[in-house]
Amino acid sequence: MAGAQDQALGAFLDDLASERPTPGGGGAAAISGAMGAALVSMVCNLTIGKPKYVEVEADLKAVLEKSEKLRAELTKAIEDDVQAFDAVMGAYGLPKGENDEAKAARTAKIQAALKEATDVPLECAKLCAEVVKLAEETADKGNLNVISDAGVAVQSAYAGLLSAALNVRVNAASIKDRDFADGRLADLEALLGSAATTTAKTYDVVKSKIG
Amino acid sequence: MAGAQDQALGAFLDDLASERPTPGGGGAAAISGAMGAALVSMVCNLTIGKPKYVEVEADLKAVLEKSEKLRAELTKAIEDDVQAFDAVMGAYGLPKGENDEAKAARTAKIQAALKEATDVPLECAKLCAEVVKLAEETADKGNLNVISDAGVAVQSAYAGLLSAALNVRVNAASIKDRDFADGRLADLEALLGSAATTTAKTYDVVKSKIG
Repeated sequence: MAGAQDQALGAFLDDLASERPTPGGGGAAAISGAMGAALVSMVCNLTIGKPKYVEVEADLKAVLEKSEKLRAELTKAIEDDVQAFDAVMGAYGLPKGENDEAKAARTAKIQAALKEATDVPLECAKLCAEVVKLAEETADKGNLNVISDAGVAVQSAYAGLLSAALNVRVNAASIKDRDFADGRLADLEALLGSAATTTAKTYDVVKSKIG
Repeated sequence: MAGAQDQALGAFLDDLASERPTPGGGGAAAISGAMGAALVSMVCNLTIGKPKYVEVEADLKAVLEKSEKLRAELTKAIEDDVQAFDAVMGAYGLPKGENDEAKAARTAKIQAALKEATDVPLECAKLCAEVVKLAEETADKGNLNVISDAGVAVQSAYAGLLSAALNVRVNAASIKDRDFADGRLADLEALLGSAATTTAKTYDVVKSKIG
């Protein structure tokens, strides 16, 4: 099967706009995060090796290694989202069952799929939050000639986080195991609070450097 | 020439991450906006024709027509950004000239390219701001089953606007015609102020509907 990364950008946008439920917001969230990671990498690549930036070279090599790993994981997350969604739809589509045992089995499958469909965007949210942190370091240390790209990186990654967060919430809302759901929502809130502060600070740093 | 929309998503992300200066933040901004427009269209497509939503059908048909137009314009904006950047780099790369006349001619070409490279992301910012407004209407009226996608739409479009804004600023900063630059920066501030409010309100509406 060809992965999402093999699809042409225009065709992907056509699919996103169509009445088909996937790709949807979960895939867009992963792409936003992946674009953020790619732009962190770009700023690192345009800083490493420049004599003027020799003092931060080791730091930005470490950032680049992490951002490229995150980019690969976020690209993969586009497909994870489709699979998690399909599993939920598949479980809801099972025959409703004619006795209590069959009904309980269907419910259990739906609930298991909903838990997975909560964890998949939560993982995407975590990856986006990591990109936000790398963008902060890149905005502090990167080549001034491309520092605006570090600002775009942080906004793309933060939008990915806010977008993934909606998919965590929408699936967590249907989960009967409230300990599970509340735990995941608490993890999400912690990510969001920290990333909001870092994003605002990083965007301001970039604005002051280019202004 | 094959357009950006014909490039595979993974290859685009590879190019974005590379040490080549384009595609960069300007292209990412346009894609964020295009994803926002596509998700507005998706919610419209999944609402139009549903008996439960017959009362908003005419409104969402009008939204869909606009969002599809904006999606096409934002997809085109990916390439406009590359061309505007290349024109600036080309002008800076001209021979510096051995007399005042030649020097003045080079400066004039650089300044003209910088004005274009300010107007191109400002146009992208305007398109993204239009998507933000459509996402607001979609979040108010769209099918509840996919309302989270309206929330992703608004965050994608707003990230596109904030990203394009950095490219407006970075080019406006080098323009000697301060009336031109200040006018464009004032236009930008007006877009940003309005979109920030609409984005926060729309995201909250979506959260309350799914929570």
